[in-house]
Amino acid sequence: MALRIDPWGHTTIKEYEKLFQYFGIKPFKELLPQIDKPHKYMTRGIIFGHRDFDKFWKLYKEGARVAVLTGFMPSGRFHLGHKMVVEQLVYYQRLGIDVYVAIADAEAYSVRKIPREETIRIGVEEYIANMIALGLDPDKTVFYFQTKQDPRYYRLIQMFSRKVTFNELEAIYGELEPAKIMAALTQVADVTYLTHRDLGGYEMLLIPVGADQDPHLRLARDIVDRYSRELGLKPPASTYHRFMTGLDGGKMSSSRPDSAIFLTDSIEEARRKVFRALTGGRATIEEQRKLGGIPEQCTVFELYAYHLIEDDRELEKIYNDCKSGRLLCGECKRRAAKLLEEFLRKHQKRLEKAREKAREIAEEVAPEF
Amino acid sequence: MALRIDPWGHTTIKEYEKLFQYFGIKPFKELLPQIDKPHKYMTRGIIFGHRDFDKFWKLYKEGARVAVLTGFMPSGRFHLGHKMVVEQLVYYQRLGIDVYVAIADAEAYSVRKIPREETIRIGVEEYIANMIALGLDPDKTVFYFQTKQDPRYYRLIQMFSRKVTFNELEAIYGELEPAKIMAALTQVADVTYLTHRDLGGYEMLLIPVGADQDPHLRLARDIVDRYSRELGLKPPASTYHRFMTGLDGGKMSSSRPDSAIFLTDSIEEARRKVFRALTGGRATIEEQRKLGGIPEQCTVFELYAYHLIEDDRELEKIYNDCKSGRLLCGECKRRAAKLLEEFLRKHQKRLEKAREKAREIAEEVAPEF
Repeated sequence: MALRIDPWGHTTIKEYEKLFQYFGIKPFKELLPQIDKPHKYMTRGIIFGHRDFDKFWKLYKEGARVAVLTGFMPSGRFHLGHKMVVEQLVYYQRLGIDVYVAIADAEAYSVRKIPREETIRIGVEEYIANMIALGLDPDKTVFYFQTKQDPRYYRLIQMFSRKVTFNELEAIYGELEPAKIMAALTQVADVTYLTHRDLGGYEMLLIPVGADQDPHLRLARDIVDRYSRELGLKPPASTYHRFMTGLDGGKMSSSRPDSAIFLTDSIEEARRKVFRALTGGRATIEEQRKLGGIPEQCTVFELYAYHLIEDDRELEKIYNDCKSGRLLCGECKRRAAKLLEEFLRKHQKRLEKAREKAREIAEEVAPEF
Repeated sequence: MALRIDPWGHTTIKEYEKLFQYFGIKPFKELLPQIDKPHKYMTRGIIFGHRDFDKFWKLYKEGARVAVLTGFMPSGRFHLGHKMVVEQLVYYQRLGIDVYVAIADAEAYSVRKIPREETIRIGVEEYIANMIALGLDPDKTVFYFQTKQDPRYYRLIQMFSRKVTFNELEAIYGELEPAKIMAALTQVADVTYLTHRDLGGYEMLLIPVGADQDPHLRLARDIVDRYSRELGLKPPASTYHRFMTGLDGGKMSSSRPDSAIFLTDSIEEARRKVFRALTGGRATIEEQRKLGGIPEQCTVFELYAYHLIEDDRELEKIYNDCKSGRLLCGECKRRAAKLLEEFLRKHQKRLEKAREKAREIAEEVAPEF
């Protein structure tokens, strides 16, 4: 059942119109009828756009070899924004699709200047561990570090450097440095190498990413095109999701701890963050009773929509109760805090075991230095 | 015994003075007394400069683990200029020093735009095969392609990108492109990775190169310095040799076949090239009898000095006979052609077997695409 409300219908169009209009990203909702059991991010308009998802889905339905790949930069603690991506991976994995996860340690080191041991530690203890605890099957998922790959993956990076210009890289990455160029070409390898006949031989890859990642995918598509005869790589399909707003109304970021809920936050910390979160509430209770709240601008409503409420009808009820002024922010936050607490308790319990598994995996896949 | 004549004493000082003065390259001849059996390029001033060769030699004498490494871009046919480098490798190998040869296929592909299969074919059939035929022991030499290496080698390349600036690369490579940046950092990995504790653990590498390669080595030394604490890489020692002049008086280059003698030239071709070669002869026989020739400006004398005459006294005789006007160009060329013919016949016979061995090696080390 598709959600009847469309909380971000308008803002989506406003913010992301350009992506549809100028860059050829297509609205995702048009594909909903083709998907038997869509993920809640699909019905809720959180995944709002795509490139070639229809082709990817058709191949999947026909039983062709397809895979989903995404990458994480091991640059900080794992938070709810990261969880969004993992949810999608788990969804596809449960449909029987192969899942690959790139730990972008080369990029974290060279562009973000995080010490090597730190990138490896964060990659294992924060990223791989949390992903497993979130339900990604460790035995069915291929985790890899960018700096510990098949030599042929690096061969692609070397080759890509030949047919890429400064101008197109500058358009995406702004002021260039050697490290950014290297990171860009490495990323192109990540989203394409599995379609090489010797390196996976997949018919198509799907890359679920945040809306800001499209330029990288456009670059990858362009480069693949230039090597079509030589390498036979295939352009990646992609889906684009909206970002959660930071709890303080800014960007959600590991570098501002109060903007995000980390999956290793203590229950107290998490509660405190929820109670301090920016809402769509009015200045006074009276006003809110009269005019209703603005869930479209509420970071607590986002917590529900992205993470805390599975049932679309229940989410719809919260939306309507807020809009009508029946549900006030205090009560709403208490409920969110309680649901979050339940989630975190369960997750953190699973995390202990997941860490052990992550360390086991690391023995195989983590770089030696 | 050191050669008493110094055919390029003056020109060396003139041409390479800057290298000594501004860039810290030191004259090689000062080290001659330390070397028991110097190579003829050392006694003849063909190897004219070095960085840290004294340190390298001391380590070697003390029995420390040291190695010699050089790289070849598989971009054309193997000629006498390439042979110069191989002679040096053979010399060090016979002293018991480990020898590594990088086939710079990534660079040939991305900077010179040579098709991949071609870079691999040339690397095996031209370079590895000729090197073996020239006496490099295939069982004691490590040949590798830049695109088929240990992942940790690529990790170094990724890491290097972080602490290198556009400016310093531009100073060496001129106008930059992504491909040149990649090639530069790959080259830095080539001349340093074997000193990493996990990747060879050598105390020091010696890189014998042509004089024009010093900027790359300076870059490598600078980069190693920036990573000294993190990676413990060691700066390469290097020696610098003069280039043979092209037989037509220009630069010796695969792209102008008449400038070079290729080791697969037919005897007729080779003879023809010798007879057409630019000499230091005078306009008329009378003049030459009177004034003597100018061996310092003679490409045929270079053939003797670099390749055809092992005995320093014999070379000295040719030099003196030319200078005095006793030896005329016709006779001198006939002798050179004959010696060259002998060399090529022997070499080309060895080459057949060496090709087979090269193909065997290729099964292990050549990239798959």
